[in-house]
Amino acid sequence: MKFSKIPAATITRLSLYSRVLEELLSSHINIIASDKLAQKCGVNPAQVRKDLAYFGEFGVRGVGYFVKELLFEIKKILGLNRSWRMALIGIGNLGLALIAHENFPKQGYEFVAVFDIDPKKVGRRLPSGQIIHGIDELDEVIKEKKIEIGVIATPASQAQATARRLIDAGVKAILNFAPIQIQIPEGFIVENVDFTVKLDNLAYHLTMEAV
Amino acid sequence: MKFSKIPAATITRLSLYSRVLEELLSSHINIIASDKLAQKCGVNPAQVRKDLAYFGEFGVRGVGYFVKELLFEIKKILGLNRSWRMALIGIGNLGLALIAHENFPKQGYEFVAVFDIDPKKVGRRLPSGQIIHGIDELDEVIKEKKIEIGVIATPASQAQATARRLIDAGVKAILNFAPIQIQIPEGFIVENVDFTVKLDNLAYHLTMEAV
Repeated sequence: MKFSKIPAATITRLSLYSRVLEELLSSHINIIASDKLAQKCGVNPAQVRKDLAYFGEFGVRGVGYFVKELLFEIKKILGLNRSWRMALIGIGNLGLALIAHENFPKQGYEFVAVFDIDPKKVGRRLPSGQIIHGIDELDEVIKEKKIEIGVIATPASQAQATARRLIDAGVKAILNFAPIQIQIPEGFIVENVDFTVKLDNLAYHLTMEAV
Repeated sequence: MKFSKIPAATITRLSLYSRVLEELLSSHINIIASDKLAQKCGVNPAQVRKDLAYFGEFGVRGVGYFVKELLFEIKKILGLNRSWRMALIGIGNLGLALIAHENFPKQGYEFVAVFDIDPKKVGRRLPSGQIIHGIDELDEVIKEKKIEIGVIATPASQAQATARRLIDAGVKAILNFAPIQIQIPEGFIVENVDFTVKLDNLAYHLTMEAV
């Protein structure tokens, strides 16, 4: 596992680079200068080179990067050259918004099973096709459908217990939208989504401008 | 504007530090060693020191940081020592989830006005108290309520036009949840929220483990 010491920020930036490269590709741009790519990503050029250098040599001196090739390599590094099977737990407003969000399937993330605790919701079919399972079916469905990632969109009070059930059922990675920091055992990975972090950046800039 | 050259990543980390310090404070921890704080934030200690050094001298050598004091300073830097007046545009599932999300008011972000294009929604009162305005009232309400931040939760097809209207009405900063990169004129700031970036990090770790 020679990549294990890669900084988390590098992985996040690779994600960003892949988004920008995809846009370039769909605009039929085949080659991009290193500095131009950096600028489009809002990162300095040295940072782009350093991030990529963890994984090998990319680009041609004096020419730049071949867009399709670099995108292919980054997707391979991130594991995005395949699709990922996800379960969604919590079919409230946020859950429904996530299921309908076009970025997930576009990036290869599929909600193959959805769960809720509310008996009035269980058994209903969503416009996107999935039938809502009861939370008591979680273990069985997770195993049967070979779910790899669990997405939690429950209220805060249910989130930790839901994470526990997902892990017990064999899920290794969790994306948590509930407004609480989830604790998980070593060997598992959780990303907590906090919408307000991006707002802090806006608040900072507005504050600076007013100085 | 002497802070204008602060890296964006530093601002994002300050946000994270403030969340961790708030947790410490609510656990009645008054002093924390520099290394311990770094560990709790998942950042290396040199990075924490470097981030804080942009803004002055904090902490006491051999002792660590005074939690309340450091939190106060970071909140001042980020502009979180006050509340921010926000408008939400798009009252679909995502919009409803955002309004109900407890992190916003907790961090001082208030949805003081909400808008939708759907005549069936306009005029209705939300459980959180706001009455849904029609999009044609946007300019007037934004000015009257002194809105500072616009939050876009419309479909992708409406997002760019919505951003334009917000800016024309005097909003300087936009948080965009629509699955499209919004373009704005210089002097304004936009943060695009892409839920899948955090998933890429999970996919990367799952891929590495399987190697």
